[in-house]
Amino acid sequence: MASRIGTHTIALTREVFLHEGAGIAGKTEKEGPLGIFFDIAFDNDRLGQETWEKAESSLQTVAVRTLLGKVSLQPEDIQVIFAGDLLNQCISSTFGLRELQIPLMGQYGACSTMAQALAVGAVFVDSGAAERAVAVTSSHFCSAERQFRMPLEYGGQRTPTAQRTVTGAGAALLDKSGQGPVIRHLTIGTITDLVIKDANHMGAAMAPAAADTLLHFLSDTHSTVPDYDLILTGDLGSVGSSIFRELLAEQGVTVGQVHQDCGCLIYDREKQDVYAGGSGCGCSASVFCSYILQRMKRQELHSVLFMATGALMSPTSSQQGESIPGIAHLVHLQQPDRLS
Amino acid sequence: MASRIGTHTIALTREVFLHEGAGIAGKTEKEGPLGIFFDIAFDNDRLGQETWEKAESSLQTVAVRTLLGKVSLQPEDIQVIFAGDLLNQCISSTFGLRELQIPLMGQYGACSTMAQALAVGAVFVDSGAAERAVAVTSSHFCSAERQFRMPLEYGGQRTPTAQRTVTGAGAALLDKSGQGPVIRHLTIGTITDLVIKDANHMGAAMAPAAADTLLHFLSDTHSTVPDYDLILTGDLGSVGSSIFRELLAEQGVTVGQVHQDCGCLIYDREKQDVYAGGSGCGCSASVFCSYILQRMKRQELHSVLFMATGALMSPTSSQQGESIPGIAHLVHLQQPDRLS
Repeated sequence: MASRIGTHTIALTREVFLHEGAGIAGKTEKEGPLGIFFDIAFDNDRLGQETWEKAESSLQTVAVRTLLGKVSLQPEDIQVIFAGDLLNQCISSTFGLRELQIPLMGQYGACSTMAQALAVGAVFVDSGAAERAVAVTSSHFCSAERQFRMPLEYGGQRTPTAQRTVTGAGAALLDKSGQGPVIRHLTIGTITDLVIKDANHMGAAMAPAAADTLLHFLSDTHSTVPDYDLILTGDLGSVGSSIFRELLAEQGVTVGQVHQDCGCLIYDREKQDVYAGGSGCGCSASVFCSYILQRMKRQELHSVLFMATGALMSPTSSQQGESIPGIAHLVHLQQPDRLS
Repeated sequence: MASRIGTHTIALTREVFLHEGAGIAGKTEKEGPLGIFFDIAFDNDRLGQETWEKAESSLQTVAVRTLLGKVSLQPEDIQVIFAGDLLNQCISSTFGLRELQIPLMGQYGACSTMAQALAVGAVFVDSGAAERAVAVTSSHFCSAERQFRMPLEYGGQRTPTAQRTVTGAGAALLDKSGQGPVIRHLTIGTITDLVIKDANHMGAAMAPAAADTLLHFLSDTHSTVPDYDLILTGDLGSVGSSIFRELLAEQGVTVGQVHQDCGCLIYDREKQDVYAGGSGCGCSASVFCSYILQRMKRQELHSVLFMATGALMSPTSSQQGESIPGIAHLVHLQQPDRLS
């Protein structure tokens, strides 16, 4: 059973374990500082497929198969999978997961989708609607570039505020029993729109949503920043992270070193040509499901807020003069009681 | 609390009321046999907007505002809204719901999205994660045509198996207390792929998924067709409905007159030029949230299976030679115990 806390937060009363995760990445991500933490990192971003879109589908297949392999489960042991990606009509998920034959519910929250999928999955397991659920999301630099911006062959220049879509995927197993951290709270985000219209400035579009969701969570749970070891945003990048911290400071909340951002962690911005950092559904998913979950399993982190952020736009909406609204969903993970 | 029944079905133990619905439609739908049942039907499918995409967003705004008006609730009374549509990156939902500031979780299941949104919403209310949740989906003939097929100005001919995307939206309020039918069971669909590749033959692509989900549900609940007053598929259309019945007959299940399809109900195929019937996220949503829900409220229907079907494809996946996989999610609604 779940219950409501404050205006925006859900408290889970049953222990929902984030039992295991798998993070998959591409070549540039393998060469970054988290390269050694990914379960699988490919040297060729085509993954042996004919098209970038099919390569991205393969990222999801590999992520879920790797996850299931780590816990010795079969697809039929999973009652439902919550999956999403950035491609039109979420085809990475459809074609990547088709062969697994797990009951599927597609999720769309742009780059916030991993937090959303974990949140919905947690409610399903908490309620008894599923004993085990999987959350998975992906993105691919090459499929995203040609869908959202320019064909790769065009070789367009990027602005310093632009972010590089991560080639990667992450999958997580939610289980009513098991090991690892448990999911304690969820805060569902609302659309926040500061009327940013520059698709090369996504961090600025998403930062207000992240600040909004975090402030709701802290207020609803009567907690403060020092209560957490890590506040992990999804893919604000370096520019968005600065704006996020400034917006919070205006409200009297200092996150300091407790805040880290998956888009900043995944690349070495001094050595790699990645502008303001990583982005995409696969950014927070691959970082969270490998590096962060491994640190929680090693007891290095006891209480973590995972807050993936999404920019809710399409090329069509931008061409029609619309702004880029943001959204952020929060998942609070903690070591289970018996270990704390 | 929810519990699992059989392999694919969820039984809800708390009463989750489908307290109220609102169905919104466009001009062609207004002229069809269900025209008098829609809460609002527009004479001009532009809805006063500059573009078809913005018109579709307005359908969602109007659907949710009409729903809330009928039950005298404000947006802040709703803890979460599950919304989806067919447009790239689900922009109808984003821009249609932005002003309402209700915590949002985007759903994507192609034309199955209304059943999926109701199912996820029902689990949230059942678990206590939300006291009230709204499910809403939309589609628009003109935005869908130019995204999935051809610009309207091209005037392409259609095959007899093609379906017409419904201009419409439906919104439903799920409430832990209230009136109206309650949601008893949910069956989450798996991807079913009979390797149909013709985007003008969607009914055939979706029919196997609908048959698969219904067979799972009947098996899981140890029930038979006569236990239900209505088995309502989403938008198989006339061709897909025939295939659906044939596939079931092969398994010894005869649905007969108990089966109806929203895509067949919404238009008069003899008088209106709609090929094999209606389709789109807004088809099942607008029909279910107006005509069907009104019949349940009048006690004309006591036990209904609402099973929306989706074709999980994009123009890109079709251009790359992929088939059109289908999916169907089922929601079982019943009059509450005190009335049965």
